[in-house]
Amino acid sequence: MLNKQEVLAAFEFRHACKQFDSAKAISADDFQLILEAGRLSPSSFGFEPWRFVVIQNTALREKLKQTVWGAQNSLPTASHYLAILCRKDDMRFDSAYIDHFMREVQHLPEDSVERKRERYRIFQERDLKLLESPRALFDWACKQAYIALGNMMTTAALIGIDSCAIEGYDLATTEQILADAGVLDRDKFGLAVMAAFGYRINPQPPKTRQAAKDVIVWVE
Amino acid sequence: MLNKQEVLAAFEFRHACKQFDSAKAISADDFQLILEAGRLSPSSFGFEPWRFVVIQNTALREKLKQTVWGAQNSLPTASHYLAILCRKDDMRFDSAYIDHFMREVQHLPEDSVERKRERYRIFQERDLKLLESPRALFDWACKQAYIALGNMMTTAALIGIDSCAIEGYDLATTEQILADAGVLDRDKFGLAVMAAFGYRINPQPPKTRQAAKDVIVWVE
Repeated sequence: MLNKQEVLAAFEFRHACKQFDSAKAISADDFQLILEAGRLSPSSFGFEPWRFVVIQNTALREKLKQTVWGAQNSLPTASHYLAILCRKDDMRFDSAYIDHFMREVQHLPEDSVERKRERYRIFQERDLKLLESPRALFDWACKQAYIALGNMMTTAALIGIDSCAIEGYDLATTEQILADAGVLDRDKFGLAVMAAFGYRINPQPPKTRQAAKDVIVWVE
Repeated sequence: MLNKQEVLAAFEFRHACKQFDSAKAISADDFQLILEAGRLSPSSFGFEPWRFVVIQNTALREKLKQTVWGAQNSLPTASHYLAILCRKDDMRFDSAYIDHFMREVQHLPEDSVERKRERYRIFQERDLKLLESPRALFDWACKQAYIALGNMMTTAALIGIDSCAIEGYDLATTEQILADAGVLDRDKFGLAVMAAFGYRINPQPPKTRQAAKDVIVWVE
């Protein structure tokens, strides 16, 4: 159990770090912890729709600069640059992938597989209407990736590492660049979000947030 | 800076806790930290689309049991039960809310307001095509809420508190219950996700996850 002040300090320390000190690399050990925070994150039904692509290749980072306007200063300077991909149709209740996942990853017995698939079908078809469009299904998968994203940035902050989430890109052309580089199979995956990690070079700007009274409601 | 083993231990400790010890309440101080983790979470453009509703009212929890199948055992036993709402049309680049937010929360000078609004317009209209449908815009706002969700569950785990994210509900009827209770203005907000917090009563089941080699790709 950790000291509450230290945990709060990490949330104050974290900010959208736009540019990093390119001379400072995150140690393999530290980045391993950040990746574990992503990998061990929870996801709906435990189906882990994500894939974490760590882009260290300079040529690929250079290409991404053409379409990722939100990372103009972080692509060249980040110690580690991450793209989180998510599965598309694989996440449907009736896919071979989900069947495989329940059996080979979650190790569910046969009757649990059938019960869970049926529950998942109703969840997707009726409860959240996720099969309304391919976009609705993919956006739902991406929501799970944002849990991992938050956990990775917070874990970084807890060990003194800066980060920035990046949504600032033209999605179609950025996915094409990743596909051309062989890291995105567009039939199966889409780009959920990106993030840069490293050590700040500039001072942290003041944090602005709505007051607690404007965002928290108690129903007692 | 925190000990890496302690941080990793929190990710191992966290699991989808379905039922809590109803005799154990989270202290006001501890839950305050969990709420701060949500409030201080990052969001796209810093626009904080969320609202955190803490549902302690027994009658409302009882009503929610009718539609939230994913919280049958946590609604009656959780120390704190959370619904995260997100804004809908308010998140459009041309809304009065975003104008207010840039001026009154982010304290941007006039020329920055105009530049940011234009950047945000292109981001919504062209880059991510968020204005394709009301659902696409709302789902994008909800993605930000999942960052806060992840941070709140991780913060809980860091201080020894259990949690469970909850998406298992019929969305339309659950929103209606929240609207009838006066905590959801359906014109402005939708339900993003729920979460329960408390102390476990049952042992933690074994965690299943895909192996690192199956979810992490390095491009070097």
